[in-house]
Amino acid sequence: MEAMNFALLQNDTFLRACLRLETPYTPVWLMRQAGRYLPEYRETRARAGSFMGLATNVDYATEVTLQPVDRYALDAAILFSDILTVPDAMGLGLSFALGEGPRFATPVRDEAGVSALRVPDMEKLRYVFDAVTSIRKALAGRVPLIGFSGSPWTLACYMVEGAGSDDYRRVKTMLYSRPDLMHKILQVNADAVAAYLNAQIEAGAQAVMIFDSWGGVLADGAFQEFSLAYTARVLGQLKREHDSAVIPRIVFTKGGGLWLQEMGDLECEVLGLDWTVNLGRARALVGSRKALQGNLDPNVLFAKPEQIDAQVAHVLDSFGAPHVGAGAAAGHIFNLGHGISQHTPPENVQMLVDAVHARSRAMRNRPSA
Amino acid sequence: MEAMNFALLQNDTFLRACLRLETPYTPVWLMRQAGRYLPEYRETRARAGSFMGLATNVDYATEVTLQPVDRYALDAAILFSDILTVPDAMGLGLSFALGEGPRFATPVRDEAGVSALRVPDMEKLRYVFDAVTSIRKALAGRVPLIGFSGSPWTLACYMVEGAGSDDYRRVKTMLYSRPDLMHKILQVNADAVAAYLNAQIEAGAQAVMIFDSWGGVLADGAFQEFSLAYTARVLGQLKREHDSAVIPRIVFTKGGGLWLQEMGDLECEVLGLDWTVNLGRARALVGSRKALQGNLDPNVLFAKPEQIDAQVAHVLDSFGAPHVGAGAAAGHIFNLGHGISQHTPPENVQMLVDAVHARSRAMRNRPSA
Repeated sequence: MEAMNFALLQNDTFLRACLRLETPYTPVWLMRQAGRYLPEYRETRARAGSFMGLATNVDYATEVTLQPVDRYALDAAILFSDILTVPDAMGLGLSFALGEGPRFATPVRDEAGVSALRVPDMEKLRYVFDAVTSIRKALAGRVPLIGFSGSPWTLACYMVEGAGSDDYRRVKTMLYSRPDLMHKILQVNADAVAAYLNAQIEAGAQAVMIFDSWGGVLADGAFQEFSLAYTARVLGQLKREHDSAVIPRIVFTKGGGLWLQEMGDLECEVLGLDWTVNLGRARALVGSRKALQGNLDPNVLFAKPEQIDAQVAHVLDSFGAPHVGAGAAAGHIFNLGHGISQHTPPENVQMLVDAVHARSRAMRNRPSA
Repeated sequence: MEAMNFALLQNDTFLRACLRLETPYTPVWLMRQAGRYLPEYRETRARAGSFMGLATNVDYATEVTLQPVDRYALDAAILFSDILTVPDAMGLGLSFALGEGPRFATPVRDEAGVSALRVPDMEKLRYVFDAVTSIRKALAGRVPLIGFSGSPWTLACYMVEGAGSDDYRRVKTMLYSRPDLMHKILQVNADAVAAYLNAQIEAGAQAVMIFDSWGGVLADGAFQEFSLAYTARVLGQLKREHDSAVIPRIVFTKGGGLWLQEMGDLECEVLGLDWTVNLGRARALVGSRKALQGNLDPNVLFAKPEQIDAQVAHVLDSFGAPHVGAGAAAGHIFNLGHGISQHTPPENVQMLVDAVHARSRAMRNRPSA
């Protein structure tokens, strides 16, 4: 593959923080930052006609990915896409009913369904890789671009349930009663996710994130066996660098705070944390091995400016000073602990981003105690 | 109040385990054990006409509370009631739409609504206390009866949201933007819950449990301030004994595993744990101060008999031998990590109860290593 000659990166704060290098301030981006809370997103979405019309069209995907970067001083962009593109490419028939979540026409529920699963031809996901390249070009080096995928377990939840679930009864019934089938699904998913993320890296993604959105619904023991092990299998296959740049890998298990010590052994640079985790404790557990990303409750964005500022301070302070003791590394990427709500007032995001930058700069200029 | 002369307790295994005293086997009961998965429950429910018709009628409530105790060798009964009786008695107008969850006619959303809140006259909850006495008599000493309430925070979630929620946007917006209002609600709730549980104790409840079902949705910091502190306020007001018997107090925060160390300081005898928590680690953290209750994933009950047995063994083993080292206490109460699913095959519950009893007896007879 020939080099694509992308523009030089002007803001490397996010990438440096991933590698726990010093930064002049704490970088910030927001999960689901390109989304329905933005009027310009809703306008593009209306033009696209449908959610998949938006996600599968390179121009639309590029447009909405850049919208939050144009509006706010965010330190990273993240590919606009759906978490279920990979099982869709496996032939499960993804659709979005109006006002409902995603749905698969042919969920995987028996031995025959599992046996038929294959790592999909990555050409079926060309629209995603084309979007990555298009976005990377459109960013023109302003901030780095993050690619992403759902984790093998999270994809399996949707593939077996056929839709969202509040008790995960079908997928857990398979897990407990036919662990052999569950392991087969997860093996295929892991290899597919690895191929998918590597292709995003080749197309221009400068970091990749694995969303283990449903890892936290598993029992202790089951998490390690059915989620963590397959996240590790993905990580083991990922390109370490591309185009002479290191590609940081972020793993986020929603509700995974109890397993942080074990996650500290993953072959990745960053762990994402939800708001239930105390960043100081997390840093004490894994902070010498991993950068940490998170973890403001998105509902803080419904409060008043001074309260948003206070909660930003709380999160920054809980991580602690960027340099504690000689040789200690930095490594905090500010984010929410979950995707931003569609009901968020856009002006409050501005408040948040500015508060993170201003306060974290001030922390670095504070004389050390 | 005159003594009620209840029958002598024949099976005190549950109460002894709460107090971390030796027991011949690990006692077991199941959250929501009286419920829709039982055909006899559905039959009574049909006669009652509605859920509230069932919960507010002393005879029906007695009947359904005893159904699982009649069917299985459970070691405790739990009052059949709704978690929202207290806010209903505050005048919020509880109703259950068909096929939906609970709903309040007048949710608490502003200063006026909060100012109007009072600890309700306990006479409005007389039907609950009458049910407790009726159930205790009907049990005739077979197993102890557990009373319960929602936690102040969990009640507040429903009171502010007006119904169930998947993002807790309204209640968290109040928490972050008007913490003064949230604290007022929680104070009233805590005092109401304490009065409610004390009245259940006087009516015959032999242990009480506080369900902090939504504590786990809070951010670190907010949990301690808005949930834990008010659970502590309830506990501080509870009767320590009644009718010459100690009344054990159980606190269960779903998703609260990260705060176990702080919960270990609560003035209660038992901590309930969901399935994400490793019982061995929990025991190491708080096991010298608290008995532990939990924590099988209810979805295990959809697996095959030998798999249920294996998962029971996993939970018992993760807690560890009842006596580790000289003077170490017992203190495990087997339970699910959440309420039993309405889709559970009733025969699998039989499997579970028998497996817990047989395996935990065998553990006690094993020669120590």
